[in-house]
Amino acid sequence: MIGYLGPEGSFTHQALNTFLSKSNQKGIEIVSFQTITQIIDGVNSGKIKYGITPIENSIEGGVGEVLDQLIRASQKVTINTEVIIPIEHCLITRTKKITEVKKVIAHTQALSQCQGYLKRYLPEAEIEPVTSNSTGVKMVSEMPNGNIAAIGPEMAAKIYNVPVFEKAINDEKENFTRFVLIGTETPLPTGKDKTTIAFGVPYDKPGTLVTVLNSFSREKINLSRIESRPSKKTLGEYIFFIDLEAHRDDSPLKKALSEIVSEFSFYRWLGSYPRWK
Amino acid sequence: MIGYLGPEGSFTHQALNTFLSKSNQKGIEIVSFQTITQIIDGVNSGKIKYGITPIENSIEGGVGEVLDQLIRASQKVTINTEVIIPIEHCLITRTKKITEVKKVIAHTQALSQCQGYLKRYLPEAEIEPVTSNSTGVKMVSEMPNGNIAAIGPEMAAKIYNVPVFEKAINDEKENFTRFVLIGTETPLPTGKDKTTIAFGVPYDKPGTLVTVLNSFSREKINLSRIESRPSKKTLGEYIFFIDLEAHRDDSPLKKALSEIVSEFSFYRWLGSYPRWK
Repeated sequence: MIGYLGPEGSFTHQALNTFLSKSNQKGIEIVSFQTITQIIDGVNSGKIKYGITPIENSIEGGVGEVLDQLIRASQKVTINTEVIIPIEHCLITRTKKITEVKKVIAHTQALSQCQGYLKRYLPEAEIEPVTSNSTGVKMVSEMPNGNIAAIGPEMAAKIYNVPVFEKAINDEKENFTRFVLIGTETPLPTGKDKTTIAFGVPYDKPGTLVTVLNSFSREKINLSRIESRPSKKTLGEYIFFIDLEAHRDDSPLKKALSEIVSEFSFYRWLGSYPRWK
Repeated sequence: MIGYLGPEGSFTHQALNTFLSKSNQKGIEIVSFQTITQIIDGVNSGKIKYGITPIENSIEGGVGEVLDQLIRASQKVTINTEVIIPIEHCLITRTKKITEVKKVIAHTQALSQCQGYLKRYLPEAEIEPVTSNSTGVKMVSEMPNGNIAAIGPEMAAKIYNVPVFEKAINDEKENFTRFVLIGTETPLPTGKDKTTIAFGVPYDKPGTLVTVLNSFSREKINLSRIESRPSKKTLGEYIFFIDLEAHRDDSPLKKALSEIVSEFSFYRWLGSYPRWK
């Protein structure tokens, strides 16, 4: 069983379908969860085999909660793979005439990512935020007339059987989200892998971060992402999350880590997995 | 005129009052804004002299929108000072008996930061998220009876004239927020300053970040914070925001920057200002 961050028809649901068809794992049962905590707890307790959640978007940035929850879960819970999909917002409505649309409903993030389109084609329409895009599509499906439109994933339109009026109405066309499949496995090295680690540096030795990054650099390990999250102890104390282009079984990464692990005030390996392509 | 992120009685309003009393600037007119964009646009157009917004919290992490907006504003708009205040959530209600409280309303973040208290003392109460803590306090003030409570800043209780039942009910007592005063001035060096900069590194030269950090390290400049935000162009391309413990007029910082500025694909100085104490 695989858990995903719902509701049904969310971009995470869409990312899960992309993963399933690519990995030829059709027929596996999937279940929607309301929060990231529930997904990670589900994997931890063995209730679900995997869970999938967004981890970063090319416009909005990182999803801090996933990182916070990963280091709070038990050590067996790690990132088993990544999935990257384009985010295409669709205008979803029963009407065939855009002039008939009097109201547009969507999550605030979708509304803000489509504001150019809305100003151009629906300048008079009332704009109303709802708790999720899929909820908006569901609401549209329950309305008898066509003067309301939702913004959301194509998949939500299919699920709730409402026509897509126009695809990809987001202002920024380069809009991608990276999702991670959380589980308890470690895929073998493929030669094109990523490793995610989390670490803290002693508060009184701020130069440690540079020492750490230098060590990876010396071993020619590319750092594809660095994100800092608060330690939740003291303002100004952080935990760093780093994605490295290597598998934990690769010798350069082993060597780099062995040189610096004693510098950390805290260290967690969060998974080695193939890069998405 | 100083703009702050409202509504009235918000923690930002409280931070502004702390700043005004510390800097002896009483009597200056203050005005509430609804969004960070409005505050930064207001400073940019000269409509307000300063604006104050949160930039990071010791539990929730950074406020990405402030960073995104700062690099989109004109170059004259910078950070002029920082203000750090403890975040103390209060239980605000008309009743003197906690058993009479049937419903608790607050922003989801406040509800989540006080969940231990709520489970212990109000296990039966209905929990309802509202758009802001101050809105919740205002709602409580408008209810005739005492069976509803809000969670929020002490200041909101004063403004709406509702008694504080208990102070500091947040589970994590170490809860601080750092605010920045945005303006068009640069305070002179005090010997204990911070400088905030933003830069991009070329996508095809990932080692550049290490080169940059090494340059500061060589000049013995402490790095007190590093945050990455998406470039909004390509997934995996970031802009780094760094706080350094130096003023831009200090020679070591001048030297470090002169050595590395040619490595950046993008660079913006975002202010030099005294450290909060």
